[in-house]
Amino acid sequence: MRVCTLLTDFGLRDWYLGVMKGTLLRLAPGTVLVDLGHQVDPGDVATAALLLAASAPVFPEGTVHLAVVDPGVGSSRRMLAARVGGQVCVAPDNGLLDCLLAGATDPAPGARAAPVHAIERPDLYLESAGETFHGRDRFAPVAAALLVGASLESLGPPIDDPVTLGLPPPAFDRGRGRITGRVVHVDRYGNLITDVPVRWIERELLRARVGTLEVRRRATHYAEVDHGEPALVVGSLGTLELALRDQSAAAATGIARGAPVTIDLAAPER
Amino acid sequence: MRVCTLLTDFGLRDWYLGVMKGTLLRLAPGTVLVDLGHQVDPGDVATAALLLAASAPVFPEGTVHLAVVDPGVGSSRRMLAARVGGQVCVAPDNGLLDCLLAGATDPAPGARAAPVHAIERPDLYLESAGETFHGRDRFAPVAAALLVGASLESLGPPIDDPVTLGLPPPAFDRGRGRITGRVVHVDRYGNLITDVPVRWIERELLRARVGTLEVRRRATHYAEVDHGEPALVVGSLGTLELALRDQSAAAATGIARGAPVTIDLAAPER
Amino acid sequence: MRVCTLLTDFGLRDWYLGVMKGTLLRLAPGTVLVDLGHQVDPGDVATAALLLAASAPVFPEGTVHLAVVDPGVGSSRRMLAARVGGQVCVAPDNGLLDCLLAGATDPAPGARAAPVHAIERPDLYLESAGETFHGRDRFAPVAAALLVGASLESLGPPIDDPVTLGLPPPAFDRGRGRITGRVVHVDRYGNLITDVPVRWIERELLRARVGTLEVRRRATHYAEVDHGEPALVVGSLGTLELALRDQSAAAATGIARGAPVTIDLAAPER
Repeated sequence: MRVCTLLTDFGLRDWYLGVMKGTLLRLAPGTVLVDLGHQVDPGDVATAALLLAASAPVFPEGTVHLAVVDPGVGSSRRMLAARVGGQVCVAPDNGLLDCLLAGATDPAPGARAAPVHAIERPDLYLESAGETFHGRDRFAPVAAALLVGASLESLGPPIDDPVTLGLPPPAFDRGRGRITGRVVHVDRYGNLITDVPVRWIERELLRARVGTLEVRRRATHYAEVDHGEPALVVGSLGTLELALRDQSAAAATGIARGAPVTIDLAAPER
Repeated sequence: MRVCTLLTDFGLRDWYLGVMKGTLLRLAPGTVLVDLGHQVDPGDVATAALLLAASAPVFPEGTVHLAVVDPGVGSSRRMLAARVGGQVCVAPDNGLLDCLLAGATDPAPGARAAPVHAIERPDLYLESAGETFHGRDRFAPVAAALLVGASLESLGPPIDDPVTLGLPPPAFDRGRGRITGRVVHVDRYGNLITDVPVRWIERELLRARVGTLEVRRRATHYAEVDHGEPALVVGSLGTLELALRDQSAAAATGIARGAPVTIDLAAPER
Repeated sequence: MRVCTLLTDFGLRDWYLGVMKGTLLRLAPGTVLVDLGHQVDPGDVATAALLLAASAPVFPEGTVHLAVVDPGVGSSRRMLAARVGGQVCVAPDNGLLDCLLAGATDPAPGARAAPVHAIERPDLYLESAGETFHGRDRFAPVAAALLVGASLESLGPPIDDPVTLGLPPPAFDRGRGRITGRVVHVDRYGNLITDVPVRWIERELLRARVGTLEVRRRATHYAEVDHGEPALVVGSLGTLELALRDQSAAAATGIARGAPVTIDLAAPER
């Protein structure tokens, strides 16, 4: 039984998600469907890309991840399939695979690029009157083909120029002891999740600036902090996260996604 | 492994959906449950009927669709089971099966009525203290019986008078070249989905009026249109849809579900 | 194929739920995952406890229920596993199991306590950089261990002091014919669900006060009542529920969770 995850901006109020699931189950019977999320804002490819990169790696070998946030549906944008670890991801070529391919949540130097193929299999596509629902007509049958055994290579030629999001990666100026990054996500609890890997905090953290807020306090978990006090914790991605106990840090501070993050470390010992 | 879809107005915040799923899994072990949607407004049978008609046909043969939007729960309203294609739908007799039975998303003349049975199987129903949760006490055990092999016919006598929604179907005055219909759904993107089948647009479309808006532009996909420009596309149901690129047509125009649609075609060539 | 239900306050917009599901499927392949709900307010342990108690009992023997509403994640709060009927529940020790263990939805006198164990299995836990996502790093692997055959007893020592919510149970003064309780939940329809078991209404109900509202009308189902009229029905938990036909009782009356309920029964016949 193979697992297929679904990540879309379809929401949960229309028939789009049910139709994509029904099509997958019809073409690849026995598939275990798992929702990664369907409520990113319509067309918010960057958030979907982060969600995919954060979720996909924990799934079992052989999982197919189908991600459809696709404002360019029907246009000439390509469809991609990429092997990442023992898994395959299928998505439009609009940056949706960017974080996953770049290992963007933890940008280790020298990370090897995953093989990416452009999907060119009109023989698989379903016929329909329109060009507005490739989730059903193209992506679902391609994912189903993978689920029933097609190889990545059979889907189309390898490419080396997938569309990227052009997001600046975090930077570490070791000489100066300064790390710069940004807030990449605000979660349901209002935690401000940054892209700064905690393994970069090699020395004492002197001061962190997240948007307009300066924080010096680090904590290992939320409950360690006093009510309403801001603290830096290690978040689920292994990056720094600014949290307020029992409160939304985002609501309390007004800091939002994209806010700059600057961290100063103590001078190295001599 | 048989598939059972679930469509309700239960939302995702209470225990109703989990309880219905647990009951189904207890009575029909191994069933694959798929959500068609649980967030139609409480009691909005018309939207649920459209969702069901739009989703059900793509599912595999043998799928059981269980739809419970049931403001009349506990009253003498009947419970129905209908065979549609190789699938069976179970729902209260309040119009929820109407679009599916009528093929309402594409009202081809002469569509054959599906066999509909009234469910009369108190032996299957679960005992409980109240009459307010037939989803658990009646619908789930009936669906489970179908999933483990009961025949449609064994559920109760055939009927020929299921409740209908009384929605006016779209109309095509071929002589005058005029099609009239309405907006049947506003999706998450704000697209205004009409009930006008695109195959009726046999000749050049001169002008479409959707609510208060006049549109002449047709497009094959959303990205073809300039930002903020309205255009008619072929939607996922094979019907005309009014879209604004990167914007909600509903929000920008104020046009809502139920708005009238009038389309004038060019005169036939002589 | 074993069933694992999931109940969290993770919401549906972040990667937390997908990551927990992926981890479960990786560690316990073939598990059937069922959502009990993920949209209780962040940290609302009391609502989650009620949801768990209302949902769990209908699931098949052998089901593992994993509930993670855990504002104290990373602190020294314990993790618990409890056997309830033929099922096992895993949750933080913060009251989340309270309603289920107490049979709180129907507090029969003399209900036997379920065996509860503290989880002490660091060998199972996954390593990660932080202490903020025990759903992935500790709860998921413990649930997976149960799903692939570990015994409850192997998880850690039995305890007899699980944290309770300290909620007052409903009370029945038989001599005076007076029942007191409270509104324990407001559902999506706006129904005010109380903790008063209907089996306590042994004699004619003279008068019920729910918050500021006095109601004398009982009904067997919602549609029996006139539009806008309040009535008491038997809800899905077997407790009294205050409903308004085709309307939200909560919105119309302003009565909320926690409101006191007082019910006076007729004097016993002599």
